[in-house]
Amino acid sequence: MSIEIERKFLVRDERWRGLAVGASLRQGYLSSHPDRIVRVRIEGASAMLTIKGRTVGVSRGEWEYPIPLQEATTFLDGLCEKPTIDKTRYRIPFEGMIWEVDEFYGDNAGLVVAEIELMSENQPFIKPEWIGEEVTQDSRYFNANLIRHPYSCW
Amino acid sequence: MSIEIERKFLVRDERWRGLAVGASLRQGYLSSHPDRIVRVRIEGASAMLTIKGRTVGVSRGEWEYPIPLQEATTFLDGLCEKPTIDKTRYRIPFEGMIWEVDEFYGDNAGLVVAEIELMSENQPFIKPEWIGEEVTQDSRYFNANLIRHPYSCW
Repeated sequence: MSIEIERKFLVRDERWRGLAVGASLRQGYLSSHPDRIVRVRIEGASAMLTIKGRTVGVSRGEWEYPIPLQEATTFLDGLCEKPTIDKTRYRIPFEGMIWEVDEFYGDNAGLVVAEIELMSENQPFIKPEWIGEEVTQDSRYFNANLIRHPYSCW
Repeated sequence: MSIEIERKFLVRDERWRGLAVGASLRQGYLSSHPDRIVRVRIEGASAMLTIKGRTVGVSRGEWEYPIPLQEATTFLDGLCEKPTIDKTRYRIPFEGMIWEVDEFYGDNAGLVVAEIELMSENQPFIKPEWIGEEVTQDSRYFNANLIRHPYSCW
């Protein structure tokens, strides 16, 4: 298990574009219950099953299991809650940290969020100028919630 | 993936006892949704994460991933739907087949079911005399449903 400590922000403008090459991500949920998230994710040619416990503050337990790509595709096409989530992830280095910027498509088109993963809850970090409002605690932005209440319906 | 083809029966009497040594099983669900079951199971020192699709007739898709015992314990204690299911499984050979007899405890105490796994839906098999009524299609007996509606409440 790892403890996942993430903070999530909106982006202020388009200055993040061009700072990294994006990777296509497709993900879906076998469970989107906040106490027991079970996520299936395909990134490029690799696939992962991820289990997450309840978020406490900005931390949550996370366990990852690599699975065969074909099985992940079967889960996403046939078993997962619908719709699945399609996004492009840009990994942007800044001041010794990596910012992950996710640009969503489909029912969540128009949504762009930036996340930073920390080693501890109080770890200091410097925000790029294009980082906007923090939404870490806003459950609407949880990926699992973007299935049931996509951005286009807000 | 494997296709799981199982038929489930009640037992008529106690003649199955003594035909095999039992193994303790503890299992719980990260998802008990019938379209996307995610089961955590500990049997002895081994642990498994199992994903199952919707049952069609007596068949359903099933995918199994071994996971570390400690992680399974964390899931069962902290993440899974409550209560978890405790049972003893007896594997009883009969006429070239293996009958799995599950004796439940806790909220499902008193319930004993016998299952046989088949290679095809029409595979013939011989029932031992202690096998009773078939309950394959009775959803009350699905393990995932024994959490929400345990045998003691029937």
